[in-house]
Amino acid sequence: MTTRGAGAIGAAAGYAMAQACLSAPDKDYHNYIVQALQEIKSTRPTARNLFFAVDEVYKAGKISRELAREKAIALAEADAQASLAIGMHGQQLIKENARILTHCNAGWLAFVDYGTALSPVYQAAANGKPVFVWVSETRPRNQGARLTAWELHNENIPHRIIADHASAWLMKEGKVDLVITGADRIALNGDTANKIGTLEKALAASYFGIPFYIAAPTSTFDPECSDGSGIIVEERHENELLFYQGENHQGELVTVRMASPGSSAYNPAFDITPASLITGFITEKGIIPAREQAIRQLLTKIG
Amino acid sequence: MTTRGAGAIGAAAGYAMAQACLSAPDKDYHNYIVQALQEIKSTRPTARNLFFAVDEVYKAGKISRELAREKAIALAEADAQASLAIGMHGQQLIKENARILTHCNAGWLAFVDYGTALSPVYQAAANGKPVFVWVSETRPRNQGARLTAWELHNENIPHRIIADHASAWLMKEGKVDLVITGADRIALNGDTANKIGTLEKALAASYFGIPFYIAAPTSTFDPECSDGSGIIVEERHENELLFYQGENHQGELVTVRMASPGSSAYNPAFDITPASLITGFITEKGIIPAREQAIRQLLTKIG
Repeated sequence: MTTRGAGAIGAAAGYAMAQACLSAPDKDYHNYIVQALQEIKSTRPTARNLFFAVDEVYKAGKISRELAREKAIALAEADAQASLAIGMHGQQLIKENARILTHCNAGWLAFVDYGTALSPVYQAAANGKPVFVWVSETRPRNQGARLTAWELHNENIPHRIIADHASAWLMKEGKVDLVITGADRIALNGDTANKIGTLEKALAASYFGIPFYIAAPTSTFDPECSDGSGIIVEERHENELLFYQGENHQGELVTVRMASPGSSAYNPAFDITPASLITGFITEKGIIPAREQAIRQLLTKIG
Repeated sequence: MTTRGAGAIGAAAGYAMAQACLSAPDKDYHNYIVQALQEIKSTRPTARNLFFAVDEVYKAGKISRELAREKAIALAEADAQASLAIGMHGQQLIKENARILTHCNAGWLAFVDYGTALSPVYQAAANGKPVFVWVSETRPRNQGARLTAWELHNENIPHRIIADHASAWLMKEGKVDLVITGADRIALNGDTANKIGTLEKALAASYFGIPFYIAAPTSTFDPECSDGSGIIVEERHENELLFYQGENHQGELVTVRMASPGSSAYNPAFDITPASLITGFITEKGIIPAREQAIRQLLTKIG
């Protein structure tokens, strides 16, 4: 968790794989890089971008060290380009004065630049459209309250933080026009793994008739995964829920207990939203519906 | 928020009203107790039990101080009796090895005794049925993680704390058999105000076909409220979300920042779940469907 965010994880993993190729000994080169491939993949089992980047750099590394290095650089560059294109396409969905709900952090802190879910917001604002963002806190690590809020504050975009489970009530009260989140892995049929809590927002959006979009580059789609049942959901340590590290009034980092002592917690880090609850995907190649045919077309489409 | 929980608030408010009657000056008795009535009602606008208890004690107080005192005692006693009866009825819904999801705290810490949502759990356990409880954290004040978990730990009932927005995923994974929550106010048509996040759980339960019950005494039903649109939802201070006070490793109470500085929060304390998403109400007089006719019958039924 030192590196987080789908795009940043992918880019960092690509560089890690290139580093392994560059430092692999001549005499045992292939065994060494196969082992590195497996080790890097085992770090975050849900993150599709990690697998994609590591596989690409590994394939280049099988040919030469220099090719591995070039591939890693190209992948990071492609991530930034894809984020920008996602913003360009996605901002068309955003009307003036739209109130957008997002979850977790899929902004420039999570990618090499711009981000996915927040990129359309930034592009809409850059195009002069007034926008407002509801930022869901994103327990237990508060990526929404800490990272997304920080980005939006820095970008001067009006926003407010809400408790994660308040989103349905805001929708019922007519306070949300559009939901955009990122994704960690998308199956061929459109089922999407993303931060725990995404499923509840999709259910609520569907019930109240609010468009629900996933913003993600093509590299997040997994052609080897036919539907959500094939996605492994990472379970993280219970202490993430039971304790919290934050700044006290003196600006010192301190850890406090969030729960009664003696009780344990269950902490799945992601959930899987069925394609039927997703209005569409905002990709760098355009906006597509959450249907297998459209996803297959996307994966074969160039540029 | 020094006193919290529907039943405890009701009992405390009843005693506060009785106290006002006992200390009211003879010459201005009626003006004094009318003012006390209004002041007490203004403290927690969503809590039906508060209004019920204060009105009952006020009516008795109009006759005599002694009657006000007796009424307040009788109401607290009735709350304990109602909680026990709710447990007796509700435990019939709980099968052996059932996994029950609850939200916020509606146990004996919230009522004079036993509680509402947890009372059926306690009765099922007392009858020898093995049960397991999923405790949703209940941001921002963590009544689930702090109070419900503490109660269950003390009652030796197996349980685990989850992030609030993880409930839909647990349901999808087949890990939840039944949802029971409490209520702060129930309209005549069955629309129910309860802790923020209840609506999301009801939506998820409905989608995944899991029974969703509200446990509440008859005093929580409001005959003057035809549907949820008439219920005022209390908005609380943003600092509840932005900061958290908990114990550090030395057991000292410290306050930490939960969010990025410079961002504000929106903190509605309750939401309203439409009757259509509620399987039924567990009351001290039996289990009834979430339909107006059944609620009207309940309100006229004695004992």
